Amino acid sequence: MIVVMKANSNEADIQHVLTFLEKHGLTGHLSQGVERTVIGVLGAIGPTGAPGSIGGINPAIGEALEGMPNVENVVRVSKPYKLASREFHPEDTVVEVPAACVAGGVVRIGGPEVVMMAGPCTVETEQQLMTTAAAVRKEGAVILRGGAFKPSTSPYGFRGLGEEGLKLLAKARDEFGMAIITEVMTPTDVAMVCEYADILQVGTRNMQNYMLLDEVGRTRKPVVLKRGMSSTFEEWLLAAEYILSQGNRNVILCERGIRTFEKTTRNTMDISAIPLIKRLSHLPIISDPSQGTGRRDIVGPMSLASIAAGTDALLIEVHPNPDEALKDGAQSITIDQFRQLMPQVHAVASAIGRQLVTR
Amino acid sequence: MIVVMKANSNEADIQHVLTFLEKHGLTGHLSQGVERTVIGVLGAIGPTGAPGSIGGINPAIGEALEGMPNVENVVRVSKPYKLASREFHPEDTVVEVPAACVAGGVVRIGGPEVVMMAGPCTVETEQQLMTTAAAVRKEGAVILRGGAFKPSTSPYGFRGLGEEGLKLLAKARDEFGMAIITEVMTPTDVAMVCEYADILQVGTRNMQNYMLLDEVGRTRKPVVLKRGMSSTFEEWLLAAEYILSQGNRNVILCERGIRTFEKTTRNTMDISAIPLIKRLSHLPIISDPSQGTGRRDIVGPMSLASIAAGTDALLIEVHPNPDEALKDGAQSITIDQFRQLMPQVHAVASAIGRQLVTR
Amino acid sequence: MIVVMKANSNEADIQHVLTFLEKHGLTGHLSQGVERTVIGVLGAIGPTGAPGSIGGINPAIGEALEGMPNVENVVRVSKPYKLASREFHPEDTVVEVPAACVAGGVVRIGGPEVVMMAGPCTVETEQQLMTTAAAVRKEGAVILRGGAFKPSTSPYGFRGLGEEGLKLLAKARDEFGMAIITEVMTPTDVAMVCEYADILQVGTRNMQNYMLLDEVGRTRKPVVLKRGMSSTFEEWLLAAEYILSQGNRNVILCERGIRTFEKTTRNTMDISAIPLIKRLSHLPIISDPSQGTGRRDIVGPMSLASIAAGTDALLIEVHPNPDEALKDGAQSITIDQFRQLMPQVHAVASAIGRQLVTR
Amino acid sequence: MIVVMKANSNEADIQHVLTFLEKHGLTGHLSQGVERTVIGVLGAIGPTGAPGSIGGINPAIGEALEGMPNVENVVRVSKPYKLASREFHPEDTVVEVPAACVAGGVVRIGGPEVVMMAGPCTVETEQQLMTTAAAVRKEGAVILRGGAFKPSTSPYGFRGLGEEGLKLLAKARDEFGMAIITEVMTPTDVAMVCEYADILQVGTRNMQNYMLLDEVGRTRKPVVLKRGMSSTFEEWLLAAEYILSQGNRNVILCERGIRTFEKTTRNTMDISAIPLIKRLSHLPIISDPSQGTGRRDIVGPMSLASIAAGTDALLIEVHPNPDEALKDGAQSITIDQFRQLMPQVHAVASAIGRQLVTR
Repeated sequence: MIVVMKANSNEADIQHVLTFLEKHGLTGHLSQGVERTVIGVLGAIGPTGAPGSIGGINPAIGEALEGMPNVENVVRVSKPYKLASREFHPEDTVVEVPAACVAGGVVRIGGPEVVMMAGPCTVETEQQLMTTAAAVRKEGAVILRGGAFKPSTSPYGFRGLGEEGLKLLAKARDEFGMAIITEVMTPTDVAMVCEYADILQVGTRNMQNYMLLDEVGRTRKPVVLKRGMSSTFEEWLLAAEYILSQGNRNVILCERGIRTFEKTTRNTMDISAIPLIKRLSHLPIISDPSQGTGRRDIVGPMSLASIAAGTDALLIEVHPNPDEALKDGAQSITIDQFRQLMPQVHAVASAIGRQLVTR
Repeated sequence: MIVVMKANSNEADIQHVLTFLEKHGLTGHLSQGVERTVIGVLGAIGPTGAPGSIGGINPAIGEALEGMPNVENVVRVSKPYKLASREFHPEDTVVEVPAACVAGGVVRIGGPEVVMMAGPCTVETEQQLMTTAAAVRKEGAVILRGGAFKPSTSPYGFRGLGEEGLKLLAKARDEFGMAIITEVMTPTDVAMVCEYADILQVGTRNMQNYMLLDEVGRTRKPVVLKRGMSSTFEEWLLAAEYILSQGNRNVILCERGIRTFEKTTRNTMDISAIPLIKRLSHLPIISDPSQGTGRRDIVGPMSLASIAAGTDALLIEVHPNPDEALKDGAQSITIDQFRQLMPQVHAVASAIGRQLVTR
Repeated sequence: MIVVMKANSNEADIQHVLTFLEKHGLTGHLSQGVERTVIGVLGAIGPTGAPGSIGGINPAIGEALEGMPNVENVVRVSKPYKLASREFHPEDTVVEVPAACVAGGVVRIGGPEVVMMAGPCTVETEQQLMTTAAAVRKEGAVILRGGAFKPSTSPYGFRGLGEEGLKLLAKARDEFGMAIITEVMTPTDVAMVCEYADILQVGTRNMQNYMLLDEVGRTRKPVVLKRGMSSTFEEWLLAAEYILSQGNRNVILCERGIRTFEKTTRNTMDISAIPLIKRLSHLPIISDPSQGTGRRDIVGPMSLASIAAGTDALLIEVHPNPDEALKDGAQSITIDQFRQLMPQVHAVASAIGRQLVTR
Repeated sequence: MIVVMKANSNEADIQHVLTFLEKHGLTGHLSQGVERTVIGVLGAIGPTGAPGSIGGINPAIGEALEGMPNVENVVRVSKPYKLASREFHPEDTVVEVPAACVAGGVVRIGGPEVVMMAGPCTVETEQQLMTTAAAVRKEGAVILRGGAFKPSTSPYGFRGLGEEGLKLLAKARDEFGMAIITEVMTPTDVAMVCEYADILQVGTRNMQNYMLLDEVGRTRKPVVLKRGMSSTFEEWLLAAEYILSQGNRNVILCERGIRTFEKTTRNTMDISAIPLIKRLSHLPIISDPSQGTGRRDIVGPMSLASIAAGTDALLIEVHPNPDEALKDGAQSITIDQFRQLMPQVHAVASAIGRQLVTR
């Protein structure tokens, strides 16, 4: 941590900072430049990574320093996350998900191969789910998505079938051998969702629902953690750190678009998240072009862009009849569109030297 | 709802829309302009405001229409919220909070008077809380804020004292007669927090934690609903609608800054929310200049600006020694600064014809 | 245009709107729904597309309507741009640029082939420019970029060599047969820049410099119009409309990243602009991953993502020694990195059925 | 400047930075922490503030450092602007504008008094301008606003009367003794606009039109520099630095709203800019609630909020008949509304100890 003083700071201001640091077992190292004084803060004694500290420094200390007289700003030198960071874990994390439909019975996310996850936004009926599952499986998807608990911006919107939906998903798994990914929205549902799902999804609105993060962290299920709609990379990796620090190392990050001034698309999909997360973290990164754009007509190109940028998996909403979808009809592609997309996905993956796992 | 067709739409596209509408018991009214066809959708038969509908129209219908061939866009004519809307409830809602320190034992939020809520960001120790409570009460605050459950961006930050903190807040209430406002973060804590608090706070990260909204909606406690850090006015009022539709009419909205590209302030405080919410809704609107700016040095001017714009209350973080705060030290003002601010708050309130309730 | 009245509007409010419309030669068509009244505005008499009108309707009319008593909002049904719109010009526009290095002496942007534009951010010295030009030409770039007039956020930054830089660019064209693209910043420089450049570039800060748009519109040179850093698609296409309406049909749009809350990247590159612009407009769309990210380490993946999403060209900053760049060193890739990127660009272009023009 | 190395940087990486610094006459001061190495950069030999340098350091050096191997990030310790900074100029700048209608013939902006600037968005006709000027002067406005050159997002919108509009403004000045503020959009118009105007306005779209900034910097006229719609405080002050560094010290900053995700208002007015600019700079700061909100119905409360936050002046759009405005009708208030607002402005100004100059 580095404390930059204002140009007009005086001895007393500097002493205030130094005394404060000393009181907290830290040492301030003074550099007096021509224009400013800068104080480097040397790490505290004590175990690095202990709860309440990063590099031995409590985050509250930085906040207090920022408010002190004639402190211009406080620069955090260390990243505030550790377990999620590539610096502390240089090799790629590969998350394994059981799936009967593939050779060996395990799908690997974050390894050399690319994975296709597809299915309806929301589980509506047995027929809708089975039709979609059969179709996407036939084209090569190995993981089936489908919401049983759905966040709805309006209290009057459809909020999902609940456990009934989970049972339908489990039935589809039995029939098609696909792994199941579905959203969990509140800590008390985690145990129940774990009974049915192979991958838990934490949605964009819950990225900072810390008690939910703690709870999924206490399981050992793979978790897809969607980026908060206005979350920075740092906040996203700190949310991952919540799960990791509870002992669950099976975290998969998912770019799903961020909120900007542009309203032609529902969100602005930040494709740069894919290569950047690969640099900042060892965790797998996947992309959701359906939520990421909100527009069926560009899900195709944005899927290919994601593959070219290095995504580990695609998560795509497919509906047998989007006109009749109970939610998000505008962003679901049809089964025909999915069928046309798959060969292009294969081709672009090959172009960058990767293969799609399809069985 | 109005469906705007693309210029190159043909008969089949229009028929597709009309048939779909008919299937859902709706009538499409065609207007063929020189350049475009526009289809007005007449409300469904059946009770307006029924669950799953607004004006009798299910939100999924609009989403499906948006995805149809050669539909340019779909314009929602009705607002998606009702109970929160001023159109359906023209008179101001005034929320009553019991507080022994004021005449009559009740503070009214949303009425002619302005209310001061102040206290530490987080309850840390009995001494810290009591010192602050005594000081802010002496200057005229009638509601005491203090976090017992705290959202922390990092898993290594301080997350509050929990129930112990609630007990300290209750003790301060007993001693100073102030009403207590404190945050609740998860549905299973609602009952416990209700035992101690006079006002529940739903924080910015939980504005779309729908199960939490449902749960606080099932109580009859006043709820301060903070604006999500990237929420539109419409999403915010829909979150309020969740609480209202569960039967709890004591909802108070709180502007606390939104996320923008500007990083000199922690958030960009949107003062225009104050007069706009007054126009869109009958609910009280209050402001939090501490979170709204993240900078102690401008909490004063932003408090006065809020009053001038018509806020119903201020929610201000005060700490007896911000250097030693366990959280958000940089944005808490000192007791001295609070003392200097109060006469200015009185003066600006008077200038616009309002008074501060102080006893 | 559709005028939506508030629920509590009365006869007088509606009459106010109707009278106003009539006064401007327009007809209001009333639809009285259960909850609201909606007024459709039928196009004015007179030639559509006349200056001062879109569909015969002056934009000031909508603004006036928005401010009228009990008008909820005004919905523009027609797009405000015409010449830039795919509706009015369904076939792709292909812009031709003379370049001696390719067969036939002409590069086509917006056709089936993909084009590589590369070179230094800023022309610094003859040696820097020639070294870079030789290297990127050797790898297959056919258009050379280089700034002679540079916008600098600080008045103390480097602002380019001016005409001297243009002369060096012309010399590089003579030597390598590449076409030259360079920025023009002010109307009075347009004639001079036209003498040397094959493509004029209007930068992000000047996207709404209307007098500059008028002036480049009066030439017949190809113009690359970069997206304003906080411009919507509609504003961007309206800026293109300025140029087109002056008679210059050779407009090429360039996505270069938008400003968001995220600061790890200099801008957030909006890859979805590529497929969306293809749907909204007939104009070519190209991408600038150097400006779009501001980070050398992800220019590669974002180039490939752009190709996969359908870009018509890439515009990439390459510097022989980025450490010594006078501007934007952090986002320029090295000649080696460019050499490694090119085969990947070829492979991804092939995967989606396109070829790179290299000679 | 401080260079923060990645945790896995090695000797060679550090040496690369040090050698580069030395080559540019700078000294690197190494601090080896437990987790990271940090390199402090000591200022160059040579005159501080020379063109091309801040604290003797060329901005390109930081950009180059950012791109070097295993450099995590580069922290700028000094602010990149000087002349605009309060650090280097602690006393408030007061800009004087000649105005016959006030005692002494001079209005002071940035001093203890608050100033009202009002008038139509755009000069349309002599009658419109004179009616408005008479009305706002009568209520206490001392500066008349009115656009003769207008930026229009659409090429089909009204772009102003040009010099004819300037002549009408001059006529209004002669008649009412008010000072005139009007926009200038391109360098070649500066001389002409100077002949008629008392204050030049540089609009939000031109905040980074550097050649225009240079040109108005070469005059000695007061300049109102509006904040770019997505400009940070730093970029805004750097734009002011352009004007100041040309020798024109009469710069007035104007907050006019920024672009965010919220679309209920045309812009999000950032009231915190008022107290923050007062801390960062010595220049006067004024506010434009008409552009800042785009909604007539909240111009009043946002004007009062601006006053309470410490604005030095208000710039308000008033139209005798907003229905018939040729531009921005929705955000102009009527003469009646202006008349009702003025006593409130007086009252809030008094509440914070300031007076409105009215004669």
